[in-house]
Amino acid sequence: MANSKKKKLIPRVGILMGSDSDFSTMEEASKVLGQFDVHHEILVSSAHRSPERTRNYVNNAKKRGTRVFIAGAGGAAHLAGVIAAESTLPVIGVPITSTLQGLDSLLSTAQMPGGIPVATMAIGKAGAKNAGLLAVQILALDDAGLAKQLLKYKKDQAKEVERKSKNLKTPYGESSSS
Amino acid sequence: MANSKKKKLIPRVGILMGSDSDFSTMEEASKVLGQFDVHHEILVSSAHRSPERTRNYVNNAKKRGTRVFIAGAGGAAHLAGVIAAESTLPVIGVPITSTLQGLDSLLSTAQMPGGIPVATMAIGKAGAKNAGLLAVQILALDDAGLAKQLLKYKKDQAKEVERKSKNLKTPYGESSSS
Amino acid sequence: MANSKKKKLIPRVGILMGSDSDFSTMEEASKVLGQFDVHHEILVSSAHRSPERTRNYVNNAKKRGTRVFIAGAGGAAHLAGVIAAESTLPVIGVPITSTLQGLDSLLSTAQMPGGIPVATMAIGKAGAKNAGLLAVQILALDDAGLAKQLLKYKKDQAKEVERKSKNLKTPYGESSSS
Amino acid sequence: MANSKKKKLIPRVGILMGSDSDFSTMEEASKVLGQFDVHHEILVSSAHRSPERTRNYVNNAKKRGTRVFIAGAGGAAHLAGVIAAESTLPVIGVPITSTLQGLDSLLSTAQMPGGIPVATMAIGKAGAKNAGLLAVQILALDDAGLAKQLLKYKKDQAKEVERKSKNLKTPYGESSSS
Amino acid sequence: MANSKKKKLIPRVGILMGSDSDFSTMEEASKVLGQFDVHHEILVSSAHRSPERTRNYVNNAKKRGTRVFIAGAGGAAHLAGVIAAESTLPVIGVPITSTLQGLDSLLSTAQMPGGIPVATMAIGKAGAKNAGLLAVQILALDDAGLAKQLLKYKKDQAKEVERKSKNLKTPYGESSSS
Amino acid sequence: MANSKKKKLIPRVGILMGSDSDFSTMEEASKVLGQFDVHHEILVSSAHRSPERTRNYVNNAKKRGTRVFIAGAGGAAHLAGVIAAESTLPVIGVPITSTLQGLDSLLSTAQMPGGIPVATMAIGKAGAKNAGLLAVQILALDDAGLAKQLLKYKKDQAKEVERKSKNLKTPYGESSSS
Amino acid sequence: MANSKKKKLIPRVGILMGSDSDFSTMEEASKVLGQFDVHHEILVSSAHRSPERTRNYVNNAKKRGTRVFIAGAGGAAHLAGVIAAESTLPVIGVPITSTLQGLDSLLSTAQMPGGIPVATMAIGKAGAKNAGLLAVQILALDDAGLAKQLLKYKKDQAKEVERKSKNLKTPYGESSSS
Amino acid sequence: MANSKKKKLIPRVGILMGSDSDFSTMEEASKVLGQFDVHHEILVSSAHRSPERTRNYVNNAKKRGTRVFIAGAGGAAHLAGVIAAESTLPVIGVPITSTLQGLDSLLSTAQMPGGIPVATMAIGKAGAKNAGLLAVQILALDDAGLAKQLLKYKKDQAKEVERKSKNLKTPYGESSSS
Repeated sequence: MANSKKKKLIPRVGILMGSDSDFSTMEEASKVLGQFDVHHEILVSSAHRSPERTRNYVNNAKKRGTRVFIAGAGGAAHLAGVIAAESTLPVIGVPITSTLQGLDSLLSTAQMPGGIPVATMAIGKAGAKNAGLLAVQILALDDAGLAKQLLKYKKDQAKEVERKSKNLKTPYGESSSS
Repeated sequence: MANSKKKKLIPRVGILMGSDSDFSTMEEASKVLGQFDVHHEILVSSAHRSPERTRNYVNNAKKRGTRVFIAGAGGAAHLAGVIAAESTLPVIGVPITSTLQGLDSLLSTAQMPGGIPVATMAIGKAGAKNAGLLAVQILALDDAGLAKQLLKYKKDQAKEVERKSKNLKTPYGESSSS
Repeated sequence: MANSKKKKLIPRVGILMGSDSDFSTMEEASKVLGQFDVHHEILVSSAHRSPERTRNYVNNAKKRGTRVFIAGAGGAAHLAGVIAAESTLPVIGVPITSTLQGLDSLLSTAQMPGGIPVATMAIGKAGAKNAGLLAVQILALDDAGLAKQLLKYKKDQAKEVERKSKNLKTPYGESSSS
Repeated sequence: MANSKKKKLIPRVGILMGSDSDFSTMEEASKVLGQFDVHHEILVSSAHRSPERTRNYVNNAKKRGTRVFIAGAGGAAHLAGVIAAESTLPVIGVPITSTLQGLDSLLSTAQMPGGIPVATMAIGKAGAKNAGLLAVQILALDDAGLAKQLLKYKKDQAKEVERKSKNLKTPYGESSSS
Repeated sequence: MANSKKKKLIPRVGILMGSDSDFSTMEEASKVLGQFDVHHEILVSSAHRSPERTRNYVNNAKKRGTRVFIAGAGGAAHLAGVIAAESTLPVIGVPITSTLQGLDSLLSTAQMPGGIPVATMAIGKAGAKNAGLLAVQILALDDAGLAKQLLKYKKDQAKEVERKSKNLKTPYGESSSS
Repeated sequence: MANSKKKKLIPRVGILMGSDSDFSTMEEASKVLGQFDVHHEILVSSAHRSPERTRNYVNNAKKRGTRVFIAGAGGAAHLAGVIAAESTLPVIGVPITSTLQGLDSLLSTAQMPGGIPVATMAIGKAGAKNAGLLAVQILALDDAGLAKQLLKYKKDQAKEVERKSKNLKTPYGESSSS
Repeated sequence: MANSKKKKLIPRVGILMGSDSDFSTMEEASKVLGQFDVHHEILVSSAHRSPERTRNYVNNAKKRGTRVFIAGAGGAAHLAGVIAAESTLPVIGVPITSTLQGLDSLLSTAQMPGGIPVATMAIGKAGAKNAGLLAVQILALDDAGLAKQLLKYKKDQAKEVERKSKNLKTPYGESSSS
Repeated sequence: MANSKKKKLIPRVGILMGSDSDFSTMEEASKVLGQFDVHHEILVSSAHRSPERTRNYVNNAKKRGTRVFIAGAGGAAHLAGVIAAESTLPVIGVPITSTLQGLDSLLSTAQMPGGIPVATMAIGKAGAKNAGLLAVQILALDDAGLAKQLLKYKKDQAKEVERKSKNLKTPYGESSSS
């Protein structure tokens, strides 16, 4: 428990995004981490416009105890790859919707060469949410409290499906019709 | 050290693939895990052709101590998603090259709905290799020995680039030319 | 006729969708089934968020007499494939529009491996409507009343084209112009 | 049984393809139908090069007792759609690999307008095999023998996955390794 | 001149569209034909929903003197191909914007097999306008008046570019700036 | 007949291609024109590497009596568009297979702005063949002999389909099987 | 300084666009050039609708001292390629958003054949802005003042990222949170 | 002349590639620079595997007098973008063919955010050749000798087209045929 307390004080996850316009997407990752009470940081730092700032953050964050990076970027989305090039910590990439709907962002994030993995999520908000969840799943390997919370989260999710099914606003609802 | 020994006896990573024809790709993941001396399992199990077997494996593996799943599939690549639906452990997805060169495999693996993350890698062998590495990065968060190995691996990788640059079979080599 | 009556009481078609937000698309399938007086059910059940619920429904539905499944999902659209993995009944898949306009949904639904067919429809509402119609065509093989209705439906459809052509709001209408 | 005998004499499935070069793909459908002992026909008939022949076949086949059509075509693949325009029987479309790897064939087959469904399969051989299986699934709704065979086919398929897993030619096989 | 008069009375171009919702696009073709004083017809007729009507129109139109067909359709856009299958007259295809922005429409229209050409235009209004112009270019081969008009149209088009350039609402206009 | 003779002496169709490596594709257009006994020219001329040569050819060809241009190019395929910019004669574009399989060639040829039509064919050899046929269809509007030949060509094509169907090397051939 | 003065009077960059509707995108290039005090021109001139005007401008501009061309166009975007065909000056191409979101524009601009380079930028406004910057980078090779300004611009850009990070409207801001 | 001599001794262009397997593509750039007698360097340096080496090279190269960078990479091709992030010199990007044929490489290279331009070339060898040429065009702005060579190169290129046209191995050659 003391251990868990200490973990809370260290930002265990660092969320970076290439532009402040990415925030409306990336806050989904932050929300999930908040739900699981995982201490984290959010900042804007571009692979292209502020490369030194990005490197400095990545190197310092590790020293300060950060264990997972989440990076969101759009278009020629290099941010996650650039972080992965600088660190041996797990890096999760979120492709942000772009002029090409995020196809470019997805390919730029996922198609990494052998040797430098980036854990790529779906394009947009669903991906940002899942980035938060994957970070929790990774941290939970070493944190029984988080692992328990994850099991509950999963069950709640299944119940939520049932609840929504019952609330379908339709003459047919969940029961049979002709 | 005793702890590290024990870790070796438990298969910490489970590698699944939808078809035995995926093995030539997925063995890249196994090779990396072997290099890092990470105990693991490989099996064929399809999301579609053997759904029960897949579920049983996933549930038993967790009990036996598996901490990360790697799943490779092509086309309508549902394997990683189906595993992620059954488990709260991190799931790494490798899109296998297909009739559409793996674009379908990539989209089927990456575009997961919010709530069920799959850590998607690049299409094909580079992706399989990176799946192995990401598994190591995740395990290393809790294993100082692996973390040290990863730093060495990264340095060796950078040196290998230099070595290859010097060996370019060209009249110009690395030095200047006109 | 007594037989036809009984058929009406058993939900012959089960419509599943991965999220309640898919309902505005999937109700097109329900509307068509309603037009043909085919008894059916609609429910939300996700391949990923509620896998057990999905399996239970599929297995029970068959026992209760369901003959065709229609499944709508978007993004990494695994729902139809997961149902097809559990059943030998015909499964019709409707790709729902997504961040990539449904291209990912289409590929995730259509590109099934050999052994597990999913009858894939067009992306979105046209696809949902056609899913309903295909279910009717399948049921009609064994139901002369439905077969007759289908012929009438087809003729009406052709007449509707003519009617719309006559109503074109243009100086040229259907007749010639210069 | 007498009924089953009669069914065998009527070609219950008609397989059409736009070009004889499509045969190496489409014979997969025929093989599956053969395995299930389903009487069927195969012919070359193009939506574009022999439209009248295609219409005549479709209309006569129905009279002769054909219950399902399977159509394979590539590029601007109109064959399945043209058959669906002429008939109220279920039509299964197989997109054949093309200069664009079958993406054009897939879109031309799947993106049908509301009112005229085509049950679209995967691109290429997997799709042709599944077309045969879907036809069997449809026929099995009214044929208990086929339904039984399908269940056995599904079980055998799952066993085959296990068998292939055991035969993986790898130092790791199915068991754990380091 | 008498000849030209007669030409005007025969609808020389037939414009077909798969749905009345395509009219806002296809009227661009009609407008161009109107500008060149080319007598033409517009009608809704679907390749799938009214195949017989389409065939009848195509066959009768030729007898009545129609020389070029323009066909607009979206999604699995088979209309132009189906007309080309029935006729040896030039057929111009206009891909209509769809759920996939018209990429499916374009591929379904352009990727015709050898033996059955369709003159494919750009997606949407620009394509419809150009369909009208190509029809005029074809008719002009045999009509000196139209040929002359086309040269003027081309010159006016170039002048219009200059005019628009002069009217750029910018501090820089066409002249130089710093 | 004398008229037809004269027509034969004037090259009525000019086939241009951007590179001599396009010849293996573009000769399909020439073969078709040869079959219909249509006098034509073939030359290499690039929109980018020899723009002046291309313009000169286009302007002179028209004066010499050429009535239709066929242009084949790959990648950023501008040749057909550049010819259409210089002339009011019908221009037929053939997208040549490229590093992106011809998708770039197709889009560069088809997506012309309003005002400058290019009659775009399928990618590769099928498209080149159809370019030749479309040229014949256009010339046939004013040449009863060609029109007659086209009708025969269409019939032969349909017969060829039947012939190929009969020759299917399969245990099932065209007749029924089980 | 006198030299710098003279440079200002000669329009060193010519910005062309295919249509006046492209201006809202292309003015981003002009704004950047304005920020760097680089004298330039903007005009509408189409590769297709006003080919002669385009050629004349390109040839005269070079004589008048223009050193770099920037060309924006959408769809079958030939403008940059056509300019590059006429000149040996560097040509920068900006793909404008289109019915296909600019994928066609990008491929038409970038996929130039060997021998005729076009420096292709991103689709839309980001690309137009970068076109202006690349022109400045090129001119700066020979203009120490511009080179200095570029360094400052780059530093300001990095600072702007920091500033935006601090202003994130979130409960978490840049600092850590739980 | 002395100036020109000095220019030759300084490597004016630096060619980087992410992997030695890219050399067969990138040597096209080197060949062109060789033809124009432009002193240059070639080296392997990855954005991901050797980020520090890449930064060091870029910073030192500028000091040593390098004026243009050419970077070739495939997949998630970040190399050109990473160089552009570090420098204000012009950066030319060459997308290398990949598992997705280079579409991912192209998008990762071209879709740069506003502020950091990369001059993107075509995918593969044509792009590498053009990268060399664009570098020469940029250097020629300040080097009359190179400018003269470029004009000759362009003329030779046009002549080469004519020569190849004459050598077409066809019964029709450049002259007319029937």
